[in-house]
Amino acid sequence: MGRLSPAHATGRPRRRRSAEREKAIRAAALRLFRQKGYDAASMQDIADAVGLYKGSLYYYVSSKEELLVRSFEGRAEQVLGQIRAVADGAGTSTERLRAMVRTYVLGVLRNLDSVHVYLREEHALPPATLRQVQAEQRAMRDLFERVIREGVRDERFAATDPKLAALALLGMCTWVHRWYRARGRLDDEAIADDFAERAVRMLGA
Amino acid sequence: MGRLSPAHATGRPRRRRSAEREKAIRAAALRLFRQKGYDAASMQDIADAVGLYKGSLYYYVSSKEELLVRSFEGRAEQVLGQIRAVADGAGTSTERLRAMVRTYVLGVLRNLDSVHVYLREEHALPPATLRQVQAEQRAMRDLFERVIREGVRDERFAATDPKLAALALLGMCTWVHRWYRARGRLDDEAIADDFAERAVRMLGA
Repeated sequence: MGRLSPAHATGRPRRRRSAEREKAIRAAALRLFRQKGYDAASMQDIADAVGLYKGSLYYYVSSKEELLVRSFEGRAEQVLGQIRAVADGAGTSTERLRAMVRTYVLGVLRNLDSVHVYLREEHALPPATLRQVQAEQRAMRDLFERVIREGVRDERFAATDPKLAALALLGMCTWVHRWYRARGRLDDEAIADDFAERAVRMLGA
Repeated sequence: MGRLSPAHATGRPRRRRSAEREKAIRAAALRLFRQKGYDAASMQDIADAVGLYKGSLYYYVSSKEELLVRSFEGRAEQVLGQIRAVADGAGTSTERLRAMVRTYVLGVLRNLDSVHVYLREEHALPPATLRQVQAEQRAMRDLFERVIREGVRDERFAATDPKLAALALLGMCTWVHRWYRARGRLDDEAIADDFAERAVRMLGA
């Protein structure tokens, strides 16, 4: 979360409160979609979770589907933007791959509800949103594939099938959402660092 | 599929036909659960898919939940048994790990409907079945962890956190269910071989 601008903070408190409440609603909806499943979670459940009357909830959001769609907006895009910046940035292919894996793993671990819900409720997304999410996933895979290809070319990585290598890495990293426990033995940074090293080792020349 | 025993084949044709039909019903149910989701798929859909009246379907199976439960029986257990045999068998830790990864990937690719449905419908499983499936998953992870630990001890593998290494491998291998296409560029054997090599490389001393 960035800080709010002064104009925003002092001039438009009502709008700020409203934005905060919308964010709380989206987070509660995601949590409930994850726990109960999208079909089973009701608008009443979501209203209860944020302490609103169901009627008031409709002031912020028009439908459960809108909540599902909105909860996907921005998340993948943000992580994708960070990873693109690393891929396009300075550093050797090894350094960039390490940073990309690290960023990706942290992106999964810091958006656990959203990852769980997306992987399970993909079929509930309206076609346009689904296409968008799938395009983001392809773009993500392409970035990994490109940096792996560069690494093979400059002989930092061993010869490999770059597409399979990207899919292997993304699988290993996405799967953390299934076993990560917030109060487990290792925190998110430690897991991200460990996986970044594993990825480099798997590709190593 | 093993061959049927002669007694079975000649003496009890009715029972054999019945077993085949039950198998077809389970396969159709899994396919529909995967396509439409467990909640949305109806007994009528399943009856239609195998060309039975809905009433006749109940001759073979008492409920949709029974179909879900039965479709998990045996699958993971079979792959787990194969992987245990490899882990306990002859060969260096490197050879055994390679064979275990290969077997696991083929197990995923040859049971795609079941893997998809399990990962999405876990919450729909009755508690006893869920506990059983989770115990099988733990047993699987323990086998990988054990062979990785042995490999580190005998210095075929580099020093590593064996549990994280097992989770990384299982993630990379399980994830193939998300991107594999039956008529894609590579067949299941080629992918299994490729992933087995990646796994060994990731752990390599």
